[in-house]
Amino acid sequence: MYSMVEQIRRKRDGLELDTDAIRWIIREYTADEIPDYQLSSLLMAIVFNGMTTDELAAWTDAMLHSGDVLDLSSVDKAKVDKHSTGGVGDKISIPLAPIVAACGVAVPMMSGRGLGHTGGTLDKLESIPGFTTQIDPSAFDRQLTDIGVVMVGQTERLVPADRRIYALRDATGTVPSVPLISSSIMSKKLAEDLDGLLLDVKVGSGAFMKTEADARTLAQTMSDLGAAHGTPVTAFLTDMSQPLGATVGNANEIRESIDVLRGNGPQDVTELTIAFARAMLVLAGHDGERAASDVDAAISSGAALTTMERLIEAQGGDPGVIEDPSRLPSTGQHRVIEADRSGFIARCDAYDIGVAGVRLGAGRAKKEDDVDPAVGFTVHVDVGAPVDAGQPLLTVEYRDDERLESALSVLKGAIEITDEPVPARTLIIDTI
Amino acid sequence: MYSMVEQIRRKRDGLELDTDAIRWIIREYTADEIPDYQLSSLLMAIVFNGMTTDELAAWTDAMLHSGDVLDLSSVDKAKVDKHSTGGVGDKISIPLAPIVAACGVAVPMMSGRGLGHTGGTLDKLESIPGFTTQIDPSAFDRQLTDIGVVMVGQTERLVPADRRIYALRDATGTVPSVPLISSSIMSKKLAEDLDGLLLDVKVGSGAFMKTEADARTLAQTMSDLGAAHGTPVTAFLTDMSQPLGATVGNANEIRESIDVLRGNGPQDVTELTIAFARAMLVLAGHDGERAASDVDAAISSGAALTTMERLIEAQGGDPGVIEDPSRLPSTGQHRVIEADRSGFIARCDAYDIGVAGVRLGAGRAKKEDDVDPAVGFTVHVDVGAPVDAGQPLLTVEYRDDERLESALSVLKGAIEITDEPVPARTLIIDTI
Repeated sequence: MYSMVEQIRRKRDGLELDTDAIRWIIREYTADEIPDYQLSSLLMAIVFNGMTTDELAAWTDAMLHSGDVLDLSSVDKAKVDKHSTGGVGDKISIPLAPIVAACGVAVPMMSGRGLGHTGGTLDKLESIPGFTTQIDPSAFDRQLTDIGVVMVGQTERLVPADRRIYALRDATGTVPSVPLISSSIMSKKLAEDLDGLLLDVKVGSGAFMKTEADARTLAQTMSDLGAAHGTPVTAFLTDMSQPLGATVGNANEIRESIDVLRGNGPQDVTELTIAFARAMLVLAGHDGERAASDVDAAISSGAALTTMERLIEAQGGDPGVIEDPSRLPSTGQHRVIEADRSGFIARCDAYDIGVAGVRLGAGRAKKEDDVDPAVGFTVHVDVGAPVDAGQPLLTVEYRDDERLESALSVLKGAIEITDEPVPARTLIIDTI
Repeated sequence: MYSMVEQIRRKRDGLELDTDAIRWIIREYTADEIPDYQLSSLLMAIVFNGMTTDELAAWTDAMLHSGDVLDLSSVDKAKVDKHSTGGVGDKISIPLAPIVAACGVAVPMMSGRGLGHTGGTLDKLESIPGFTTQIDPSAFDRQLTDIGVVMVGQTERLVPADRRIYALRDATGTVPSVPLISSSIMSKKLAEDLDGLLLDVKVGSGAFMKTEADARTLAQTMSDLGAAHGTPVTAFLTDMSQPLGATVGNANEIRESIDVLRGNGPQDVTELTIAFARAMLVLAGHDGERAASDVDAAISSGAALTTMERLIEAQGGDPGVIEDPSRLPSTGQHRVIEADRSGFIARCDAYDIGVAGVRLGAGRAKKEDDVDPAVGFTVHVDVGAPVDAGQPLLTVEYRDDERLESALSVLKGAIEITDEPVPARTLIIDTI
């Protein structure tokens, strides 16, 4: 039996908490035996004093075992998932999962919803008419065996400690902490019974990690947690200073994902999707060179697109959207923003565009909010591109005038044009 | 309207909170509009990042106005109180208040109870049969006018924010913070409508501040808060490495206090009482030299003892204890601890003796515990004194054998004897 106030004092004073004490804290908090006000005080002390490697491993393991852990042993394939720390226009998971599945690796993907200025895979998928992201456990295994991919939300019973701790962190200013972020992500991913995990750690204005150094620390910390648990991890550091691809929103990101699966997506989304697909095959034990040709073949043969179609159908969605993307929701109302001068795109700010998306209704200001599947942006320019005055920069698809005006007021400062040429960004910063 | 999570983030990130935001936080927390888990997170951020002078003044002022503020304008005398940060054997307030009152300065003293290893003035006073430390407001003013002194606990309506915040700090590891300690003490004292305040900041093993540097910072911070509020403060730094006086407990500290008022108390208690009484008269505007002779006269004439007698009678206690201290509770069971060797007293540890006192029943392990008025110690030696093997070091007055054994196990290491002579402590370290 431990005293919670004693554990808080230890962390406050920079002493290490022992493994049993950490297990006790997570167990008792999840069982409502430790009050929120004690945990929040401990969390703030962790924000300041961090965690040692042993503490973090114990904390993550205790979270992971706070509820059910998946058993996918009935699925006779290697299982690999991917997690992104979140960004603007980041639809990579959607074309990625069917490509990897088409190459014979199972992808039991559990994703999240948009919060803050970032979008969420579940919200995007739900813009497909009929698509459900909640399926029951037996259907999960069967679909994973048959199609090789499921794309769902987390069940309530997986890592319940994380749901509670995350909600508390959100309300108590204790979100930005590498050990707390790492344990939140990794406890959920390690509960999925994976053979490998690809992490996409985003860096830049539209990411939660604003600097490369912070992103690198987070990526390394999560890789170490995976290794300690026996689950190989490949972590990419990728740019999130400007939105990924040409679309930000929900339905329009599904349209773009279908383009990628057809082999005609925007260059940046295609590049990341292919790099990640290859890395996931390698994590599953495939040979690197064969992985590259398998990924290319899955796209060029249409196998990946067919897998996407089967996935949509299996999860109750309208597979007709593949052939006819106009079946996806649309408001039919657009506003084009044009360049007010000639020059070069110096900044196309992911954060500002993400915030504008929330104001438009594509994301959530609060957890309880509904998202509007149809609204969003098409971004016509990349950083470094030359533009002429009057050339379209952004097309806004909107539903209501008030929200449009609110979004436009943020967009005003989002795109900057200068006289001097500007180098294009580096999309993949590093691989760990 | 403010967002609490935004204020927590600001403090976490080392930014200053503005005065209105601090007022809002204290007001909304006291009104149950801000949950404990958010305040505890902010408190931990304050433990790490501190408060600026402006923040601390605003925080203290907001606490001070969270409930009633005394109006003692009907009492036609200067009003001065004294506060000690707490120690072992610290009964100074009990002889001090009647001496100052006998010199014509009103002492509206509001004290606390023992917690942790320290004793509390209220517990000591309540060992006088019948004595009550709760009196109603009209009786308070009348007694202050008639006798010049009241010694009571805080009313529920004075600084309610402090009661709530203190309880939360106690449970969340956020007690040791100079700004939080300062604002807690000063908000209560400044709510008493004083013309001056004497602070006794204790330093050493038996004090909350273990080092002189920490104690000095606390003393200076509280003096500055008093000055900012227009209430003159004199702060003493005094030694708490060994217990004050020859007694630790409740009834036995009342006996010692009566000895001081008769002019035959232990040297250290007498020295501090007289120094503090003089300083309080000076705070009330008296001339320093006259203050010294007035204090001496109040004791030698018996006026201070008579004031103590009237105080006890006014608050329902048995005034017969003054002439016959055997009317105070006693268990009649004693155990003497003798020196196991000859030498010099190198250490007579205030903290250990305080903890032993709690185990004996003289103090509280938890807020809800009752104290035993009769049990305690007589300390026969001071640091620096020569002792012979077999000479009595401590006499323990105990009620039950189990508690005695538990106390003895702590006392074993409390007194250290060495071969080399040891200098006596410096009682008054500094005055600020």
